[in-house]
Amino acid sequence: MALLIKDIYYLPMTGTPQLKKGSVRIEGRRIVAVGDIEPRWGDEIIYGHDKLALPGFVNCHCHGAMTMLRGFGEGMPLSEWLGRVQPAEAKLNDEDLYWASLLAQTEMMKAGVTCYADMYFGEENAVWAMEDSGIRAVLGNGLVDNDGLGEAHLRAALTMVDSCRDDLQGRLSFALAPHAVYSCSEGYLRDIAAEAAKRDLPLHLHIAETEDEQERCLRMKGKRVLAYLRDIGALDRKVFAAHMIHLDEEEIAIAAAKDVRVAHCPQSNMKLASGVLPYSALKKSGVTIGLGTDGAASNNDLDLLEEMRSASLLQKVTSGDATLLPPAEALAMATREGAKTLFLDDRIGTIEPGKLADITILSLWRPHYYPRNDVNDLVSHVVYGGKNGDVHTVIINGRVRVREGRCVDLDEGRIYHEVQKRAAKFWAR
Amino acid sequence: MALLIKDIYYLPMTGTPQLKKGSVRIEGRRIVAVGDIEPRWGDEIIYGHDKLALPGFVNCHCHGAMTMLRGFGEGMPLSEWLGRVQPAEAKLNDEDLYWASLLAQTEMMKAGVTCYADMYFGEENAVWAMEDSGIRAVLGNGLVDNDGLGEAHLRAALTMVDSCRDDLQGRLSFALAPHAVYSCSEGYLRDIAAEAAKRDLPLHLHIAETEDEQERCLRMKGKRVLAYLRDIGALDRKVFAAHMIHLDEEEIAIAAAKDVRVAHCPQSNMKLASGVLPYSALKKSGVTIGLGTDGAASNNDLDLLEEMRSASLLQKVTSGDATLLPPAEALAMATREGAKTLFLDDRIGTIEPGKLADITILSLWRPHYYPRNDVNDLVSHVVYGGKNGDVHTVIINGRVRVREGRCVDLDEGRIYHEVQKRAAKFWAR
Repeated sequence: MALLIKDIYYLPMTGTPQLKKGSVRIEGRRIVAVGDIEPRWGDEIIYGHDKLALPGFVNCHCHGAMTMLRGFGEGMPLSEWLGRVQPAEAKLNDEDLYWASLLAQTEMMKAGVTCYADMYFGEENAVWAMEDSGIRAVLGNGLVDNDGLGEAHLRAALTMVDSCRDDLQGRLSFALAPHAVYSCSEGYLRDIAAEAAKRDLPLHLHIAETEDEQERCLRMKGKRVLAYLRDIGALDRKVFAAHMIHLDEEEIAIAAAKDVRVAHCPQSNMKLASGVLPYSALKKSGVTIGLGTDGAASNNDLDLLEEMRSASLLQKVTSGDATLLPPAEALAMATREGAKTLFLDDRIGTIEPGKLADITILSLWRPHYYPRNDVNDLVSHVVYGGKNGDVHTVIINGRVRVREGRCVDLDEGRIYHEVQKRAAKFWAR
Repeated sequence: MALLIKDIYYLPMTGTPQLKKGSVRIEGRRIVAVGDIEPRWGDEIIYGHDKLALPGFVNCHCHGAMTMLRGFGEGMPLSEWLGRVQPAEAKLNDEDLYWASLLAQTEMMKAGVTCYADMYFGEENAVWAMEDSGIRAVLGNGLVDNDGLGEAHLRAALTMVDSCRDDLQGRLSFALAPHAVYSCSEGYLRDIAAEAAKRDLPLHLHIAETEDEQERCLRMKGKRVLAYLRDIGALDRKVFAAHMIHLDEEEIAIAAAKDVRVAHCPQSNMKLASGVLPYSALKKSGVTIGLGTDGAASNNDLDLLEEMRSASLLQKVTSGDATLLPPAEALAMATREGAKTLFLDDRIGTIEPGKLADITILSLWRPHYYPRNDVNDLVSHVVYGGKNGDVHTVIINGRVRVREGRCVDLDEGRIYHEVQKRAAKFWAR
């Protein structure tokens, strides 16, 4: 049995966005054909009328279970915000983490996100949630040793990586996730990099979110963050990093030379007043840039459509150049380039035969998609006007997981209720 | 017969947002009671379960019929964009303007906008659309005399104002709308101001959208835009102005002294790389600030939820101050302060007895509204996470105009089709 998306507009995103009309045939987990395809007896058919298919969105940086802290610590800069959020996080138990992760996955899937990279503690709870929700993810327990428990954290992370024998039909993979240079010692970073190298895992970390981070690194290590990380060998293998805002020219050259990939989180950067990604310079140097939402406490939602829009608009207004980061680039960042940021571009990120079938279908029967006349229009409409409420169908790993805007495998009401109940208990603790 | 919104969370927005739970009773066009109210026999009841009622959003600056040009002229700064858009606009005929206005009104209502201020040509077509859609609006034919037809434009605008005997149950009011200082001569601006004074109409214009506008004014008139407008008597009566970005201290003092009200359009300002509103300084001087979408060609949608979010996030990141423009202020800008910007705050902008019943009800049964615990949470969730797809019911002037997300009086499909058909013809012309 196969799944056939019949007669639909689609943007394969294999190169510059080019609008096509045709059908997409999915067998098992993979896209097997695109183009002019007739259904066969027994195929499940999804009709494409007034709809647009895109590669599923890839959220390159998230702390999923922070949905439990949505809206917590409003109106604070990063340092103060961390001071408020971290003690709160310590109170979350395993069940809280499971339900909060499931809420995050539900929210993302309903917004067309088919894959996300997560950094949080107790990620085994996110695995249970993935088993139920059907989303694809790259999980990494957040690693710090400034609490004196670095070794235990790393051991727990490696235990999860090494003992997890079920990759959830290929949906689950891992990263090692040292939190940041200010929360991990040099020796600890070296150990983590060595363990990642042994297992061919990417490193997922926060880099240069604030100027303060750079100043501390200069004071403690005598060099800026990227130079320091390079010199201790942390950039020798696969690395993707959130934020990458406060970088000088040398660091941008290091990022390019070492192929450090960027998870750009514009709304979080705006909300915490962290700063603006040096997009032009990174782009010119050939650095790969994807998009991320960051956690729900600094955003407050997990919606890649909004990150596309904010990324584009923010670059334009702060550079004074209205041509910068056009919609086609924003859409690529949310799909193909996001997949590349997570080192998954051999498997996902485009709609073409051979790729895993991660596809988001938007309903175009909305005022903000009219009128439309050529590809530029529609790409521009999606990037500047697209909303999570437009998401009609989401296919992950060849299976329909969202149909007519609802998660087919989940009882959304139960998830809302469980999180609400636990949050109430949590606020009272 | 009355309408009763029964047992709902609501934010009256009469002061700092304070979450209440109760019922709202509407008789005719007005809210007559809020609080603990039992239904009477024959009342139409809207059940408030898992919903939030807000004053309807007020869009303080729009060019509605520009929906026909949605996404037109991508990636251009204002000067180039105007050069591309204006010749295109000249090709729009009355029927195009009617359908494009109706699309704009449909889009706004479905996004919870209950009132908008419009500046465009052929606004009599927007009146026809208002008759069908049920939205409230402050219309003004855009006035320029740099085409040699200034007098004819003004005469047409005044004819519409003076001859329009039906105010559509109080939903329709007018402004006079001189486009900008660079497209209107001094004498023309004086004439328009005099005609507005005679009729007690507000002036609606673009002010200080770009630095170039200031430079031209300095060169031609020897003063900056607001000083010039004050000196020719254009600020002596009711005035609201879009953009107000490139202002010096003296101009901010003039805005405060002359009570020039601001329609801040953050997404348009970002997309055209026009600049950032000097929010702090204006706010400190006591200037009234509402929000606007601007036209669909520079946005690309007409969604006040997005403008709230962008206004708040943009101020934080560009000032480096994460406490600036908190969600409560953004929500006030979209409701009460917006009504004040349009000089309609005696009639709309809050949920309280005596006000006209313009109410937007959001469904909270969405992942991005969970968990929630106190008023700050919910205001923050709406401002940073709210989407047009959350809009469940919209009441305008006491009548339900959107129910379960659909416009009850309109055939949305026909509107999409008419605009699409006309746009196709229009692109080909």
